[in-house]
Amino acid sequence: MAAADPAYRPFGVRLREAMDEHGPLCAGIDPHRGLVEAWGLGYDLAGVERFALTCVDAFGGRVAAVKPQSAFFEVFGAKGVALLERVVTELAVAGTLSILDVKRGDIGTTMDAYAEAFLGKDAPAAPDAITVSPYLGYGSLRPAVDLCHATGRGLFVLALTSNPEGAQVQHAVLDGRSVAGHVVDGVTADNADAASRGELGSIGMVVGATVGDAAERLGLDLGASHAPFLAPGVGAQGGSADSLRRVFGAALHNVLAASSRDVLAAGPTAHGLAARAAAVADSLRDQLG
Amino acid sequence: MAAADPAYRPFGVRLREAMDEHGPLCAGIDPHRGLVEAWGLGYDLAGVERFALTCVDAFGGRVAAVKPQSAFFEVFGAKGVALLERVVTELAVAGTLSILDVKRGDIGTTMDAYAEAFLGKDAPAAPDAITVSPYLGYGSLRPAVDLCHATGRGLFVLALTSNPEGAQVQHAVLDGRSVAGHVVDGVTADNADAASRGELGSIGMVVGATVGDAAERLGLDLGASHAPFLAPGVGAQGGSADSLRRVFGAALHNVLAASSRDVLAAGPTAHGLAARAAAVADSLRDQLG
Repeated sequence: MAAADPAYRPFGVRLREAMDEHGPLCAGIDPHRGLVEAWGLGYDLAGVERFALTCVDAFGGRVAAVKPQSAFFEVFGAKGVALLERVVTELAVAGTLSILDVKRGDIGTTMDAYAEAFLGKDAPAAPDAITVSPYLGYGSLRPAVDLCHATGRGLFVLALTSNPEGAQVQHAVLDGRSVAGHVVDGVTADNADAASRGELGSIGMVVGATVGDAAERLGLDLGASHAPFLAPGVGAQGGSADSLRRVFGAALHNVLAASSRDVLAAGPTAHGLAARAAAVADSLRDQLG
Repeated sequence: MAAADPAYRPFGVRLREAMDEHGPLCAGIDPHRGLVEAWGLGYDLAGVERFALTCVDAFGGRVAAVKPQSAFFEVFGAKGVALLERVVTELAVAGTLSILDVKRGDIGTTMDAYAEAFLGKDAPAAPDAITVSPYLGYGSLRPAVDLCHATGRGLFVLALTSNPEGAQVQHAVLDGRSVAGHVVDGVTADNADAASRGELGSIGMVVGATVGDAAERLGLDLGASHAPFLAPGVGAQGGSADSLRRVFGAALHNVLAASSRDVLAAGPTAHGLAARAAAVADSLRDQLG
């Protein structure tokens, strides 16, 4: 494991502070065709640029974290990726945490390269955290975990999602433990040092707020992981206080609610977006305490 | 499902022809630091460009397929992605199939965007196939599967890999079927039309040649899938004829052996690379018959 540079403050610590200050909202930047056109913009690189930079203006300095969705930039190829780099850089200038939703996952030197690409000191544009996918086993993500610890960045590992097809993989069982459970175990171990310091860990998980009783049925102790949870589905999509408690239990305070369409529907003005984000964040603070 | 454009010939058909003509080798373009420096090049964008374009010169028109590894380009950000687009475009000009190793996977409109980014008619640089990751369930890949069928392109879905951490996910069982088995079932269904025409399917799988008896133990009938198999580990890494038959059974003829380091070690000249690729392809033809 690379030694931690003392100049870097851990992602988990920075996220805790940001959530406490701004409320537990992670505002998405999801410039898909329908939304871009609903803002009266053309669906092309210029329209997407206008959309994304308006989001940066609206959210910068006002929410705990912002999550650009890489796919909606990659669809424009290298030029879209250049725009995405600009978005990430401008969020850093605004002092707002960025979580780049890329869901990368590979093994060996290839995973090393993905880790360097997004989490390394020389990364072209370094978000504060990225999402990763563990189909090749939680252990295959080791280069990214180690680099996070060394550079003060974070991960959100796909764990338990609410899309109906997800159960086929995530609920499957090996050695008496579900696939999602193995992810929880790996994350728990990697956050142990942070937990011993009484801090929120830097290795988070993606857990859907609307997974119902799945976490309970699979015997997942999400609270013990000391992980931040990037959670789609809180609020508008129907996660009630009861259902949230059923999923996250005592870890409700570590939930960072991912909201995209809900907030983005308040565009196209930065003012409208900022007001909606503030209202959503307040309501989430009430829900997630 | 989008209607197939009759102008497009299915990926599976094109791959079968290419494998029959050139032998079952998929030559990787993996410009990681160690290899680039071993060729006497500096490890920077210019060095990686020289490396990658030398590979295109060497492999174009001479092997069944070429697989650039996206991570080694993404590490240079948007400029690396621009180079990757050039590599994919030049392979198309050379008439050689490209399989872009990106292992993307997401849900809903985000998966739509990834499919459009790499498989759509307006994709910035459209490879003939990409790799995808099914942690969110095989069904979540539907937009990519449908687009492949409409545009004559292909997928290789991560199924059963030989890295030790992979078993934790891929061997886990739900409803009496392993995670890898659910992937095989999904692929088999999506190749049924091709199978009924007596063709190789366009939806392939990534299956490690060195998974030992895992395919047998998990009850996978790989042959029935009519899928092409992108298989790392054939040849140098120790997959003997017996062990290959144990994994792929009657489907040995559908195995496309992925080889990177083995071939790339013959650089830095295009001539040396081409000669090594030809020798490896011949030996693979003997092994995989």
